[in-house]
Amino acid sequence: MPQYTPPVRDTRFVLEHVVGLDRHANLPGFANATPDTVDAVLEEGGRFVAEVLFPLNQVGDSHGCTRHEDGRVTTAPGFKEAYSQFVESGWGTLSAPEAYGGQGMPHVVSTAFQEYMISANMAFAMYPGLAHGAIAALLAKGSAEQQEKYVPRMVSGEWGGTMNLTEPQCGTDLGLIRTRAEPQADGSYRITGTKIFISAGEHDLTDNIIHLVLAKTPGAPDSSKGISLFVVPKVMVNDDGSLGERNAVSCGSIEHKMGIHGNATCVMNYDGATGWLVGEEMKGLAAMFIMMNAARLGVGLQGLGVAETAYQNAVHYARDRRQGRALTGPAEPNEKADTLFVHPDVRRMLMEAKALTEGLRALCLWGALQVDLEHQAADEGERQMAADLIGLLTPVIKGYGTDMGYKIATDAQQVYGGHGYIQEWGMEQYVRDARIAQIYEGTNGIQAMDLVGRKLAQNGGRAIQAFGRIVAEEVAAAKAIDATADLATRLEKALGDLQAATMWFLANGMRNPNNIGAGAVPYMHLLGIVATGLMWLRMSTAAARLRDGGEGDSAFLDAKLVTARFFGERILPETGALRRKIEGGAETVMALAPEMFLAA
Amino acid sequence: MPQYTPPVRDTRFVLEHVVGLDRHANLPGFANATPDTVDAVLEEGGRFVAEVLFPLNQVGDSHGCTRHEDGRVTTAPGFKEAYSQFVESGWGTLSAPEAYGGQGMPHVVSTAFQEYMISANMAFAMYPGLAHGAIAALLAKGSAEQQEKYVPRMVSGEWGGTMNLTEPQCGTDLGLIRTRAEPQADGSYRITGTKIFISAGEHDLTDNIIHLVLAKTPGAPDSSKGISLFVVPKVMVNDDGSLGERNAVSCGSIEHKMGIHGNATCVMNYDGATGWLVGEEMKGLAAMFIMMNAARLGVGLQGLGVAETAYQNAVHYARDRRQGRALTGPAEPNEKADTLFVHPDVRRMLMEAKALTEGLRALCLWGALQVDLEHQAADEGERQMAADLIGLLTPVIKGYGTDMGYKIATDAQQVYGGHGYIQEWGMEQYVRDARIAQIYEGTNGIQAMDLVGRKLAQNGGRAIQAFGRIVAEEVAAAKAIDATADLATRLEKALGDLQAATMWFLANGMRNPNNIGAGAVPYMHLLGIVATGLMWLRMSTAAARLRDGGEGDSAFLDAKLVTARFFGERILPETGALRRKIEGGAETVMALAPEMFLAA
Repeated sequence: MPQYTPPVRDTRFVLEHVVGLDRHANLPGFANATPDTVDAVLEEGGRFVAEVLFPLNQVGDSHGCTRHEDGRVTTAPGFKEAYSQFVESGWGTLSAPEAYGGQGMPHVVSTAFQEYMISANMAFAMYPGLAHGAIAALLAKGSAEQQEKYVPRMVSGEWGGTMNLTEPQCGTDLGLIRTRAEPQADGSYRITGTKIFISAGEHDLTDNIIHLVLAKTPGAPDSSKGISLFVVPKVMVNDDGSLGERNAVSCGSIEHKMGIHGNATCVMNYDGATGWLVGEEMKGLAAMFIMMNAARLGVGLQGLGVAETAYQNAVHYARDRRQGRALTGPAEPNEKADTLFVHPDVRRMLMEAKALTEGLRALCLWGALQVDLEHQAADEGERQMAADLIGLLTPVIKGYGTDMGYKIATDAQQVYGGHGYIQEWGMEQYVRDARIAQIYEGTNGIQAMDLVGRKLAQNGGRAIQAFGRIVAEEVAAAKAIDATADLATRLEKALGDLQAATMWFLANGMRNPNNIGAGAVPYMHLLGIVATGLMWLRMSTAAARLRDGGEGDSAFLDAKLVTARFFGERILPETGALRRKIEGGAETVMALAPEMFLAA
Repeated sequence: MPQYTPPVRDTRFVLEHVVGLDRHANLPGFANATPDTVDAVLEEGGRFVAEVLFPLNQVGDSHGCTRHEDGRVTTAPGFKEAYSQFVESGWGTLSAPEAYGGQGMPHVVSTAFQEYMISANMAFAMYPGLAHGAIAALLAKGSAEQQEKYVPRMVSGEWGGTMNLTEPQCGTDLGLIRTRAEPQADGSYRITGTKIFISAGEHDLTDNIIHLVLAKTPGAPDSSKGISLFVVPKVMVNDDGSLGERNAVSCGSIEHKMGIHGNATCVMNYDGATGWLVGEEMKGLAAMFIMMNAARLGVGLQGLGVAETAYQNAVHYARDRRQGRALTGPAEPNEKADTLFVHPDVRRMLMEAKALTEGLRALCLWGALQVDLEHQAADEGERQMAADLIGLLTPVIKGYGTDMGYKIATDAQQVYGGHGYIQEWGMEQYVRDARIAQIYEGTNGIQAMDLVGRKLAQNGGRAIQAFGRIVAEEVAAAKAIDATADLATRLEKALGDLQAATMWFLANGMRNPNNIGAGAVPYMHLLGIVATGLMWLRMSTAAARLRDGGEGDSAFLDAKLVTARFFGERILPETGALRRKIEGGAETVMALAPEMFLAA
């Protein structure tokens, strides 16, 4: 049976040496994140998800969610009880504002906990995860009345929340939305339309679900500039806070999906449901992006979270399963066979998984720190720098993070051989669950276009230049130290590939924007590798310093240094090929008429 | 709903211009493969699989197979009737020997048909596919009596066949087999043991199933040198050919798998079943490899076959689905949105799929030709060369082919966005089905070790040197032609990476064989890319010649030339990174103690 242990030691190492949590102790919120508190969150939160949520992961997959004839949806056995425990223990409130009943901790701390929760049970984690996106939108754009009415009980977890964007004919292109919102005399709107792929759209975990819905008001233009955001509670909330009548919104069906069966993905029917405008009319896109940006970082974390559990299990299996002999002669001659761990190709997969999961953990937490600094840093320049970095890195964390998550889950399944393909062993679920993260909240192709089409060019390329300067500075420092000089030299070369690719876009994108589009995904991967390489440079620099100072667990630090070298030798070389692909441009990509794609 | 059209035009182009079927018309068997006959096979066989087998593909996935309390297994609705049609129409007998009721056609022709059958319904295609492996083993190692008794009705499809290798404790490492075979006074053996993961182990498609089973005779050594092969019919066959009593072999359960639900993957219990030795005692490994090598090429073809269907559907979806606008301005201003085809990143995925499927089709068929030439070529040198090439390429076609098959299926699913994750659209089934091909018949890591640990070094490296000479000669010729010079130059560079990697193994493998193991999979991909590049060089050389001569369909030929350029610009650059990974060696791969893989 699968197992999961929260990687607390590694998280702590990253928070201390990559994020530098203590250096920000003077900022609002960070005062709540003392080392003792953070340790307690990691230890106790990790224990909670491992003991309560992880045992339900396969249950959720095999049972899925059930829609009953009356439209009610029930979750898999144990989910409701676990959710109650989750609410009671307050794990969902870590970084919510204290004014609304939250614990006011930095985003970086709740991100560390969220990784664990996803690792334990991704489908479960999506229920509170979706609510967090809705909370963020209400806090940013909702009226004081709306915030007061909905947010406290969403923060506590008593009520759920959703994001309703997609319609059958309308995925990425939100200009195609058909859901209508008709203004009523009392200031409310009647919402009518069908939304699909609504995660956590209907379920039995909470008394109420607060839907945030994109719709068009009468006469609104036929583009994404015509959409508005509405709040539509499943159950109407009276002025005294008590629950009133059922609103005219219901789950029409549950989708049958490849994975995340434990989460109810609903078709939602709005049949003249009562809703209220959130923010200004026809400014729904901006509000939506507040939800989306938070959600995208959360999805990147899903890539890491699922990969971590898959990886851990592959390590256990490789230690237990005996098959064949080491190429260098029997490692355990008294056994009938050696463990899988003696085989270099099994280790290659495990080392890639280790280098990528630890690197992505650092990148996700460093990214989360930028979200905190963007809002909390005392200095305007620091806030701007943080906003630039997280703007640049959000599509990378989402796109590169989930592409790697799927790769790692697939490789971890591969370590199991035939048993990996059998459901009861649990590995194929990780692959199926990880797969959705590459698709939703904007496919990874959309992430890449957001990166190369918007984020690169914004403010005259300020963000990518700042990122390049950070890498160059840390490379220069690390080159002076024996233990990190090799990785630094390799990272410098990778940065050169990144900068050359950026320049190539500059030189060739104006002439034909398809030259940028055709290189978008390779560029996202190139930047992902360099950013993860920067994290490894920081981790190895810290590890070398601690080891030389006789501090810390030397085996752990040595492993960091070996894994950093592996990253340099085995992953950084990909940047050259990615750069050459980008420089291939759009010509052959766009040349053929669509009918020529079918050779038949 | 998904659709599938056999790519007959492309197959014909490959048979004519890459395989050069007409140049071998003087060989035994090839006389049966006149252009008209081959056309009929492609057209009629393609129509059969598209009309009869493809409509059952989703049915097989959603219904799976059912084991009843009495041990009977029934297949999904429609499978039995479709199988009867398959037998009646004789599509399973194409390349079987005429002496046993087959049509005696070259292997390359039946391979072309098999690709279509897999594309239409991979799970269905496995039923006759497994029988073919069993036939090959019986023809190579069975006694005349065994051949006469079993083969004709296996060829006709009246009876099925299986390969029984794996046991719970024994996957790759066949020395660990525990199934026992005790000799009886009448020359038969009593077979006792449990086999797992037995594809088509029990089902209702045929009256009898002929199991080929690896087991150990008393006193046999505790290694793979101690295993023998036995034929164990499900139902005993009387001397007059009539069916007798049920043998003591039964299906204990059906595995719940990630995919290929339409095929019954069985736990098989041998409870003192009656069997007969095939070939010599303790020479089972050699007989097993006859089945395995045929099966590995078939599995490589599964990578291609599933990818082709996934790709075709992604093309249709990209042409139908409207979302967003072209980067260069609206392509169809009168529509509310452009089709997905305007987006460079969608095209990038489709072009990669096109370049890889067409390249792999050529490689699979060229490989199948080597199987024919190995046995049929008049000249000893030609037979040896063919044997060398197919020995070298079998792990590449299996390993690289199925890794690319999974990648293409995943990308095709990605083109669908959220709909790709929903079962009814059919795309996620292709990903789940394609996944097994990377695992069974020897994981792709095992393929890579077969390649670098055995095939590279055999006969002083004769095979890889011969392959390198073929590439170098065709590169030299193609460099002299304008239309192919660029691809030739790029392929020459890729060949240089391959040769450098080979030399690196030579220089560093003796000192530490883990240096070879750690680079095995990257090397398999490197060779796969160069081999597929050779196919594209041939296809573009032929296309340029035909186009310049005013022959053929110019749009089709232009598409070949564009796709060849794409392969050169977008896929060949990967060889440099693969070489650098190989040159990273084993040090960091093998350095860490297993317990250091868990950072927790």
